[in-house]
Parts: sequence; C-alpha cells; structure tokens
Amino acid sequence: MDDISFAVLGTGGIGRRTLEVSTQTDGVTPVAACDRHGIAVDHDGLDVEELLAATEGNVDSDPNPADDARADGGAAVKQAGEDVGVVASAQAEPTETPIEDVIDESEAIDAVLMALPNLEHDFIPRVGERFADAGYEGVLVDVLKRSRVIGMLDDRAERFEESGITFVCGAGATPGFLTGAAALAAQSFVEVEEVDIWWGVGLKSGYEDNRGTVREDIAHLDGYDLETARNLSDEEIEEIVDEHDGRLEFHDMEHADDVLLERAGICDAEDVHVGGILDVRSDEKPTTTTVSVTGTTFDGETGTNTFQLDDDTCMAANVNGPALGYVKAGVRRNRAGEYGVFGPADLMPGF
Amino acid sequence: MDDISFAVLGTGGIGRRTLEVSTQTDGVTPVAACDRHGIAVDHDGLDVEELLAATEGNVDSDPNPADDARADGGAAVKQAGEDVGVVASAQAEPTETPIEDVIDESEAIDAVLMALPNLEHDFIPRVGERFADAGYEGVLVDVLKRSRVIGMLDDRAERFEESGITFVCGAGATPGFLTGAAALAAQSFVEVEEVDIWWGVGLKSGYEDNRGTVREDIAHLDGYDLETARNLSDEEIEEIVDEHDGRLEFHDMEHADDVLLERAGICDAEDVHVGGILDVRSDEKPTTTTVSVTGTTFDGETGTNTFQLDDDTCMAANVNGPALGYVKAGVRRNRAGEYGVFGPADLMPGF
Repeated sequence: MDDISFAVLGTGGIGRRTLEVSTQTDGVTPVAACDRHGIAVDHDGLDVEELLAATEGNVDSDPNPADDARADGGAAVKQAGEDVGVVASAQAEPTETPIEDVIDESEAIDAVLMALPNLEHDFIPRVGERFADAGYEGVLVDVLKRSRVIGMLDDRAERFEESGITFVCGAGATPGFLTGAAALAAQSFVEVEEVDIWWGVGLKSGYEDNRGTVREDIAHLDGYDLETARNLSDEEIEEIVDEHDGRLEFHDMEHADDVLLERAGICDAEDVHVGGILDVRSDEKPTTTTVSVTGTTFDGETGTNTFQLDDDTCMAANVNGPALGYVKAGVRRNRAGEYGVFGPADLMPGF
Repeated sequence: MDDISFAVLGTGGIGRRTLEVSTQTDGVTPVAACDRHGIAVDHDGLDVEELLAATEGNVDSDPNPADDARADGGAAVKQAGEDVGVVASAQAEPTETPIEDVIDESEAIDAVLMALPNLEHDFIPRVGERFADAGYEGVLVDVLKRSRVIGMLDDRAERFEESGITFVCGAGATPGFLTGAAALAAQSFVEVEEVDIWWGVGLKSGYEDNRGTVREDIAHLDGYDLETARNLSDEEIEEIVDEHDGRLEFHDMEHADDVLLERAGICDAEDVHVGGILDVRSDEKPTTTTVSVTGTTFDGETGTNTFQLDDDTCMAANVNGPALGYVKAGVRRNRAGEYGVFGPADLMPGF
C-alpha cells in the first residue's frame, strides 16, 4: 500500500500523541494538524518534533467553544508564549475556521483522524457531515467513546457512501483496540454470552494533556451525566478528583464497544460491560486492562478467553497505535471502494 | 454479505469438525465435501448430521496415497460398514478423482477449505494451482502449519491473481487464530521484540480423528523430521507416544506464524517462537495456550501483552471457528476484487 497522508483534527492529548506515534510508524505521514486557533499544513509531511515542542506549554481550557473552534481537543490546548496552541508552531497559520481549512486541503489527504471532544453527542457526526458536504473522498476516523453516537453516524451512512467516505468509528483503545480483541477472542465460540472490558489507566504525567477525556469519564460517575460534566469548571473537576483521592472507578460505562460488537454480529450489546479505574495521581495502572470473552464452543463447553495489556503500556500507546492501524485499515477499504460506517470489529477478519 | 457456500477437501478431524461448526455458524453453507474415496455435493446445502453420522467409524490410515486420493485428511478417514469414508453417506458418490470433481463444481462454490495433510511441502500449493488452472474465481483457505509452504504459495501468487483466487493460508489455530492475536496484541508497540506462541492440546477423545496432525507434530521432535515422520507406521507412532507417556512437548516448531507475521510487517520471522504440549491421553489441556507479544511503546516502555485461550476450549473449537471466520474474510476480499495470497495477519485491520 502506498504511503498514507493524514490530518489530525484536535491537538489535545490524543491528537498530539498520534502525531508522535506516527513518526515511528511505517507508511503514514501527517500532513495537517489543527486546533481551534490555527492550522499547520505541509503535504510533504509536517515537522512533528517542531510542532510538538513549540506547542508544549500551558493548558487553555474551555469545553464549550463554538463549532469550528472546537478542533483542539476541547479542554486541552497547549500554549506557550504569546501564540496559543498550534499557532505557536512555525509551520502553522492562525485561522478562525480550522475544520473548514482542513476540508479545503482534503483532496490531497487520505485520512482524517478526529481527535475531538464529543461532549455534545452529535458533534463528531456533524463534522463528518461537513466533509461529506464538501465531497470528500477518503477516510474519517474517530476515537469517540459513547454508544449513542454510533447510531448518529449510521443515520448519515448514506451521505458518507455518496461522497465516497469510509468512516471508521470508535477506533481508539476502548472502543477500538479492545473491541477488536473481543471480536478475535470470540472465535472459539459459536455463542458469546458475555464480554467484559475492564481497563486501568494511570494518568499522572498525562493528566494535563487529557482533561477532555477525564471530563468525559466523570459523566459516568454516580450523580453526574454528560450535561453536568460539560458544565463543570476545571476547579470543580479537581474537587471531584480530590474527593476520590485521585482514583475514579467506573462501572457499566456507556462505551460503544457494545453496539460495535453487536453490529459485527459478535454478541448482543446488552451482554457487553465496560468499566475501569482511572488514577490521575500515579503513572502506574491501578488495575490490569483485561478483555474477557465468555462463550460456548460448538461442542457445548463454556470458556473464557482473555486478552491483557501489560501494565507498562500507557493509555497513549494503546489508543494511538490502534488508531493509526485503523487509519490504515480504513484506507485499504476506501481504496477498494467500500464506503459507509465501519466499527473496529467490522474491520477484523469478517468473523 | 450474502450467504457463503463452501466445500471441504478432506474429511479428517479438521474437515469433519469444520462441517459441524458450520451448522452453528451464521452465513456459511457447506455444499461439498470429499475424501479420497468419494464426494458429496448439494448446492442447497449438505445434510451435515447425516454425513458425519454415516462416516463415523474406524480409521483407515495411509499417509502416502497418490495426489488426487489425498483428499481425506491423509491418515484420518473414518469408515463404517462396507463403504469407506464419505461414501458411507447417502449424499456421496464414489470417485477416483475427488479434487477434480470439486473443481468441476467450483463455479457455484464461494470458498474451498483445504483440510488436507501436507506432509509433502508442495501438496497444498499444487492443489491450489489446479484450481487456478481451471480458472476458479473464489477463495481457497488452508490450515497448513509449516513456514516454508508460504513461500511456495507466494511463488504461485500471480497465477492465483490471474484466475481471481483469494488464497488465505495458515488459517487454523496456529498459524491462524493465534497469529491474528499476535498482530492485534502488537498494536501497543512501535517495535515488536518477540512473539511467543505456546499451545496446549488435550486430544484424548479427538486422537483417532487427528492422527494426521499428530504425525506432523512428531516431525518436530528431536531425532525426527518430515521425511521420517511420513514414513512412520501407525504402530511406530504409537510407540513414540508411549515413550513419552502420551505427552509430547515441542519447542521452536516450524510454524508459519513467523513468516505470516513478518509479511504483515509485525516483526521479524526469527523473533517468533512456537511451541507447546500435546497430551493424547487426556482431554484436559496440559498447559494454557498463550500468545505473548513483547515490544517497546512509542514512549520507550517495554511490555508484554498476552492473549489466553480458556483450557476448556478444545483444539477443534480454536481451529474451526477461526477457519470459518477467515473463509468469510477471504470471501469479502474476493468480492472486493482482492486476489493473491493472504495470511491471517494480512486480514487484520491493516495494522
């Protein structure tokens, strides 16, 4: 396969680390990156080192900017010196319309990774729609988490197909990496009874970079929902973190692994359970990330296959490696003329 | 995807169990099965229950029949009553040319699973070639084990492409299921240092059905090779089994996981190690089947991700579920116009 050019929408934790990982990944070249303040484009390949170094700095946090100004990972823009966010890079230009600017360049871009916050459910679907409206023929990949968003993408599947877009949704760690692992682990069974995804994340050094993710997770705590989480100030988030001594435990999260496994024919959505522990005061994982798939074999035995990530692999490694993998998988499908909406399990060997 | 019609070449342990698993798998219909003595064809779908029941019986073992007569899993034909092997089924006809007969029917067959012994390295490649010579446009899937065979298939890739054949090689458990798991587990890492595949098989009740597999494994024991293993009588095999108290341990096996992972860009073939323990006197697995993938993350950490199969999932479940999965994946590729030779890891999400 020819080299794949890709853009990143959003330069929060996920966007920045994807750029970094791509410099160590064969066959992918980052050619554009934007946040709410600016855009950097170089179709011969961005200088990632310069871009990351120039934008390393303070956090500028505002989870509720206007639509086009959301291209920064929401609550996670880095800034240093006078220029804010990506504009601090010598490769970037300021803009009021970063997403529109990427769309303008998109004819020469094979894939676009949307590392955007999605506190409004339909934000990422609407961004996808804008690419379709512009007649983009390529791959869109998101790393969104919530189940209900998949349906919103499906509602737009026909528009993506008409445009020639292959949309890969939920292509991070969970959903994404672990969804694919569950689809694989299910292959011993003719009937899958339960998929249990349990994650551990130690985010001390990555905390500043990933406030958007933490905010989304807080919505899963008792007493909170997406609406209340969106309206929390940074100080209020810190208070919640303090109350839990930096360690937040989640059960029955609304993670799209459920609908993504159901649509791939692996099991019923209601039999998928996602939970985990986030420790923002340690880089050690508070628990080992484990996917357990329980099912019945053709000869009537019940068993549980498991997939475990080493505690020494950080969240960024487990999100961005797979995200770039799914970018490649999406481009392969796109070049074969397969358009529409695909989940991670749909891209597995057709199990 | 439309329903997939498939044929099975060989009705030894793997062929028979694939037919059985397919009756519990959505979207696949077995329409032909052959062994060295006969062929059963029904394009509306075979009656698998009748076929398996009718052919349950004694073992007729001859590892060195002529080419066309090898379509029976080699050392593993079942027989009962006067009619030998598949001919005992009311759906079957005797034939001297079973493979040719399947080729004659192949225009209406989406995929052909080659559950054939491969004690001569080029046997399966040559069978594939015969399908290409006949202008077959469809999917060939094998469950072969040995690394050197992959190169022989690659040598024929152009002929497969010209014919319109999508050849999925090494699509059983290992290589196959566990190769895919290794490709998946590698996604945390930018550099993979080692892949260790360690399997446990308890084969007491499946032993009679799987003598061909046991014979191939014996070739990996110290003091044996493929040539000597092929020439062993059944009695000599029993002696070897007795000497080891029914428990054979293997290290550094020539399993194609190595070249299949290398060709998919996951790691160097020499960094892949395959071994395991086979216990033919117990149905309990003597050790837990585990895939360990060790690598370095983008941020310089070293870790090991693991995939484990439950001890209660038997070899047949772990071979045939994935084999049918790879059949489906192959048909999807074939319908998208992708021809040539693919390994299991090539069919993963393009990592």
